[in-house]
Amino acid sequence: MRANEFFARRSRIAAALAERNLDALIVSGAPNVRYLTGFTGSNGLALLSPAGTVLFTDPRYEIQAAQETACRIRIARGSLYRAVMQAAARRRFRRLGFEKGRLPYQDYEELQAGLTLGASLVPLAGVVEAQRMVKSRAEIALIQRSVETNSAAFDRAIRRARPGVRECELAAELDYQMRLLGAQGPAFDTIVAAGPRSALPHAQPTVNTLRRNQLLLIDVGASRDGYASDMTRMAFLGRPGRKVGRLYRTVLEAQSAALEAVRPGVRAEQIDRAARRVLRAGKLERAMVHSTGHGLGLEIHEAPRLGRGEKSSLAEGMVITVEPGIYLEGFGGIRIEDTVVVTHSGASVLTPTSKDLLIL
Amino acid sequence: MRANEFFARRSRIAAALAERNLDALIVSGAPNVRYLTGFTGSNGLALLSPAGTVLFTDPRYEIQAAQETACRIRIARGSLYRAVMQAAARRRFRRLGFEKGRLPYQDYEELQAGLTLGASLVPLAGVVEAQRMVKSRAEIALIQRSVETNSAAFDRAIRRARPGVRECELAAELDYQMRLLGAQGPAFDTIVAAGPRSALPHAQPTVNTLRRNQLLLIDVGASRDGYASDMTRMAFLGRPGRKVGRLYRTVLEAQSAALEAVRPGVRAEQIDRAARRVLRAGKLERAMVHSTGHGLGLEIHEAPRLGRGEKSSLAEGMVITVEPGIYLEGFGGIRIEDTVVVTHSGASVLTPTSKDLLIL
Repeated sequence: MRANEFFARRSRIAAALAERNLDALIVSGAPNVRYLTGFTGSNGLALLSPAGTVLFTDPRYEIQAAQETACRIRIARGSLYRAVMQAAARRRFRRLGFEKGRLPYQDYEELQAGLTLGASLVPLAGVVEAQRMVKSRAEIALIQRSVETNSAAFDRAIRRARPGVRECELAAELDYQMRLLGAQGPAFDTIVAAGPRSALPHAQPTVNTLRRNQLLLIDVGASRDGYASDMTRMAFLGRPGRKVGRLYRTVLEAQSAALEAVRPGVRAEQIDRAARRVLRAGKLERAMVHSTGHGLGLEIHEAPRLGRGEKSSLAEGMVITVEPGIYLEGFGGIRIEDTVVVTHSGASVLTPTSKDLLIL
Repeated sequence: MRANEFFARRSRIAAALAERNLDALIVSGAPNVRYLTGFTGSNGLALLSPAGTVLFTDPRYEIQAAQETACRIRIARGSLYRAVMQAAARRRFRRLGFEKGRLPYQDYEELQAGLTLGASLVPLAGVVEAQRMVKSRAEIALIQRSVETNSAAFDRAIRRARPGVRECELAAELDYQMRLLGAQGPAFDTIVAAGPRSALPHAQPTVNTLRRNQLLLIDVGASRDGYASDMTRMAFLGRPGRKVGRLYRTVLEAQSAALEAVRPGVRAEQIDRAARRVLRAGKLERAMVHSTGHGLGLEIHEAPRLGRGEKSSLAEGMVITVEPGIYLEGFGGIRIEDTVVVTHSGASVLTPTSKDLLIL
């Protein structure tokens, strides 16, 4: 990412602060700090004001911070919250915004303790996240690369899926291959769930071995240069019976309907509704226990949520997952998921992997 | 972990609540929820009171929660915070503790909005964490297994370390091997840093290849059945010169001194002081930019911190890392780290891997 992209991002936040009559924003969410400064360390705070941005971190990150960001850097020994409030006091900031969804109550207390007379803290939700929802061209290129890395790792790892292999071995293989291909690691805990365990939407891989005549659900995503990808594919070990075939086709149809509903201006909940309409026709709506998708980028779960009651509208440049699924206790689960960009006219599916039910 | 261990843990927390005149505790930190209920999902809250514990989660985790916990389960559609406050209101709880270090300010606002007349929220820090510091025999056995898995993975992966191999390939190999050996994954982002990059205490592996006459720092830990391990070892590709030899011996001596200082009743800062005393004698104290260690267990970083100003005392059954390190910009870094149990008379080093400088 070029330095001027970070600068443009910070300028947009500075404008949002001016609109709210704020002197500065204390950025405490790690992905937001990264988005605005480029710093990737685990302990950082940014103090952003129209006069410029200062990154606060600890001595462990002194060298790294200097390499990663063009912002001014303050290395604090001890609490970053205290250091940030001291800096705010020196600059005589009076109205200080903070990220209320990204700040533990305890750290809020510490910010409060550092307030000078006449200054106040203003809780804000989603200021940086709102901007992060729409991705730049450079970000979409990074997500695309993450998606391609992930799919290539899937192609390599799936060759090892056969009866006798453990769920956790296959998960390890997926993560290993994505790293050999350039990812820093998985974007979330890789799910490999066979047979009835596929009915757990967030199943952790076990030492259970794959067996014949089982459904196999694989949900995997890479994190590459900070950006996430997310894909779910289904396989069957053997010849699927009519029930599996029918259920699979229904979920695939639901996913197609949801993809077709994607375009700028459509409310996020409408994508979810499009998927559910198909499932309802197949008497499967109650088997879908999660929403149809979510934004992704620097985090695996970002706004918007494609679920019931989500009134926000899609916009060109958003990157989302589309992933309807059904879960039948004792039988298994079926989910099909792509990573998708909202384009000016509809959806562009980034995920190159075939959506046929894989027969192993 | 047996159900009666969870029950005993909850009883101790209930006693701590009674001491503070609290009717209930809202447990929101995921590792704390796991510690008290056994539930491993990513979205859970526990409402703990002398009358019993209720686990709140969402429909995605309905099946999993029933498998993992013996507590009562409430599946909430929508906000868990709202559901927990409704339950608290029905039970007429008046003084409700919450985990101030584990609750974003935004969720605190939601709890507040659910308060009934006469009820109040009481911010608490570290109630569950204080209990988690001292591990049970069953927990120490799990940590031991995590440590052994990690060391076995290191032994296998290090065979691939040679000039021409990329840092990220070696990191991928470490993670892959630990998973084949039964870990669920790394306990933190594996660090493989060669040459001058080893001077970054939290270096992320790059595509740079290992080269002859370089220091190689590997910091790796497994997460197995929820429990973390943590180890750092150093290698040299070729014949180390006198400077490397001298620096290595000094760090090793600092680590030995710190290990010798470990015993129940000693303040955590004294372990740090023991390590620094050795480094100071070698004029290297300023090159140590972090504290000497930290507790670990369900999380990779737990209390106590073995650093300056940490007055809390070690106790039998605590599990900590001992990891002095020095970082010389442009030259490289050297860190040596073991996972250690505090015994009744001193320290028992769990890590079986040799601490000789590995010559590759």
